[in-house]
Amino acid sequence: MIELTAETQKDFTIININIDGVATPEMLKNISIPDISPNQGVILSGRAPVWLFCFLCHHFHPFQWVATHDPRLNGAVVVQTHYPDVSIGQIVPVGK
Amino acid sequence: MIELTAETQKDFTIININIDGVATPEMLKNISIPDISPNQGVILSGRAPVWLFCFLCHHFHPFQWVATHDPRLNGAVVVQTHYPDVSIGQIVPVGK
Repeated sequence: MIELTAETQKDFTIININIDGVATPEMLKNISIPDISPNQGVILSGRAPVWLFCFLCHHFHPFQWVATHDPRLNGAVVVQTHYPDVSIGQIVPVGK
Repeated sequence: MIELTAETQKDFTIININIDGVATPEMLKNISIPDISPNQGVILSGRAPVWLFCFLCHHFHPFQWVATHDPRLNGAVVVQTHYPDVSIGQIVPVGK
């Protein structure tokens, strides 16, 4: 089972991906995604398959920017942005 | 260094991701992406960080569909589609 939770921060929201058991692609059809305002950036975080991250990136495409958390970089890498203050490849610090 | 190569198949093109050394987010600013027709599906394949897959998914957004290769599933998982014959979560067999 895939569970997504929204963690509101000052400048963005973190979408935490929690997987109970094994995530399978058919779960994408019924996935429940937190309904949050698109007037902000989003960071996707968690241990999950690449296809789940990519699916969620596409879902959050209308948002100001989308970044994926990379624990090795101590932050999240911006992979898409419509927002002039945030650029592709920029690392947004994540405090965990 | 990040090198992307396009491998044309009958029904789609595979974008193979090859990384020489370590991929870093600042490489996204100068990445060279194969210029192929958007009238097809694209499969992203290779060992690469999540942020690189997500960046490329966004780049190929105008294409008929985008899938990410998951060797554990013997295929590629469709993560976005504008094409009626291909659905989210569908696994496209990849012969390798």
